[in-house]
Formats: sequence, C-alpha cells, structure tokens
Amino acid sequence: MGFREDLLAICGRVDGALAATLMGFDGIAIETAEVKGAEGVEMQTLMIEYSGILSQVRQAAESLQMGKASEVSIRTEKLVAVARPLNPDYFVLLALATDGNVGRARYELRVAGPKLAAQL
Amino acid sequence: MGFREDLLAICGRVDGALAATLMGFDGIAIETAEVKGAEGVEMQTLMIEYSGILSQVRQAAESLQMGKASEVSIRTEKLVAVARPLNPDYFVLLALATDGNVGRARYELRVAGPKLAAQL
Repeated sequence: MGFREDLLAICGRVDGALAATLMGFDGIAIETAEVKGAEGVEMQTLMIEYSGILSQVRQAAESLQMGKASEVSIRTEKLVAVARPLNPDYFVLLALATDGNVGRARYELRVAGPKLAAQL
Repeated sequence: MGFREDLLAICGRVDGALAATLMGFDGIAIETAEVKGAEGVEMQTLMIEYSGILSQVRQAAESLQMGKASEVSIRTEKLVAVARPLNPDYFVLLALATDGNVGRARYELRVAGPKLAAQL
C-alpha cells in the first residue's frame, strides 16, 4: 500500500477521525488524507502550524532529560490532534473530532508508526 | 484544602503518578507535590521547561482556528506529562511514569480543573 492508503486506513479505524498526514518537521507534507472537515478549521494550515509546535516540543524534550518525545496530543475546543514522530525528519498526525476515540488514535499510530517509518 | 493537598490527592488517585504542579505559564510554580522521582529526571527543571512548551502550544492554537487548548499531553521515553490550562496565567500538570494510567490522569485533571481555577 502507498502512504495515502495507509493514512486512509488509519482514519477508517478511528471513530471521529477527520484527517491524517505524514509530514516533515519543516511543515511539508508527504501525503495527507482528509476524510471529514472540521467546522471553521482549515486542516492543511492547521497541520503545517502543528509541525512547528511538534518541532519545539521535540527540541525541548531532548534538551532536557526527558528522552525522545514519542507522542504528543493537543486537545482544543474544536479538535484533538495526536502526533507521533517517526524519525528525526518526519511525523504522522491524526486529527479527530473532540468526541473522537483518542485512545484508539494513539493505538493505531503506535502500530502504524514502524510500518510508515520503514517506507521513508 | 490547600493547593498542596489537592495536588497530592490527584497524585494519589492516578497509578504511576510522579508529581503534580500548579504553575504559571512563566514557569513559576504556586505549588508542587512530588510523590516519586523519575530516574535521571530533575522534576522541577522539567516542569519549568514544560511551561515554555505549553505557552507555545497555547499561542499557536489561538493564532490558528483551533480554539483554546484544553489539554496537552507529551509522552517521552522517561515519562508522560499531562497538562491542563486553568486560566490565561496558570496550568496544572501531572507527570506520570510511562506505564502510568494516562486516561485517569486526564480525567482527574478535568475534574480538578474548575476547583483549582476557582481558588486562583
């Protein structure tokens, strides 16, 4: 399967999934699958900005004694974003509705992570 | 109850809890309760650095159309930190062991949030 199929498959298994993306920490996406829009949210813009946040989190975690960041989730009024770094350059992110299944999202990204990373 | 008792009570109800803090986004803590150390992690330093990350997340979320950030969790190799903004100046953060109960941590912070915020 290609990246797009992988991302769509992840979305299909998580209740409330809105979109998934495989993206560089520089904000440039390799592939994005958007299955449902969130009201008043420009998903592409959001994911690019999110890459900046993740990049900061990663740097901060490494400059401390926390070890590498393996998962970051941010809940806002409009959505929940769960992200997982795959290697020093790329991460996978799943955006969900606020009532979506965050636990399942974390699980699916954990399972898919090594598979996606192996293809990069 | 005072803040310290509240924080200790939260730690007591969450498996794997290491420490809880009530802190300003400027990195200055009102109160911190440390119940267990994490190997090789200076908890105070970690929490102060974490305030910087949270501050950035909050600004990024607000500059987008995501709405206010209501919860941020970061999992690293050594621990999981779950944070919840209480008002524009303060947040509460719970640090857990990597095998701690993150779902319970999120629940306890959600319940405790309004109570802590009311005392600020």
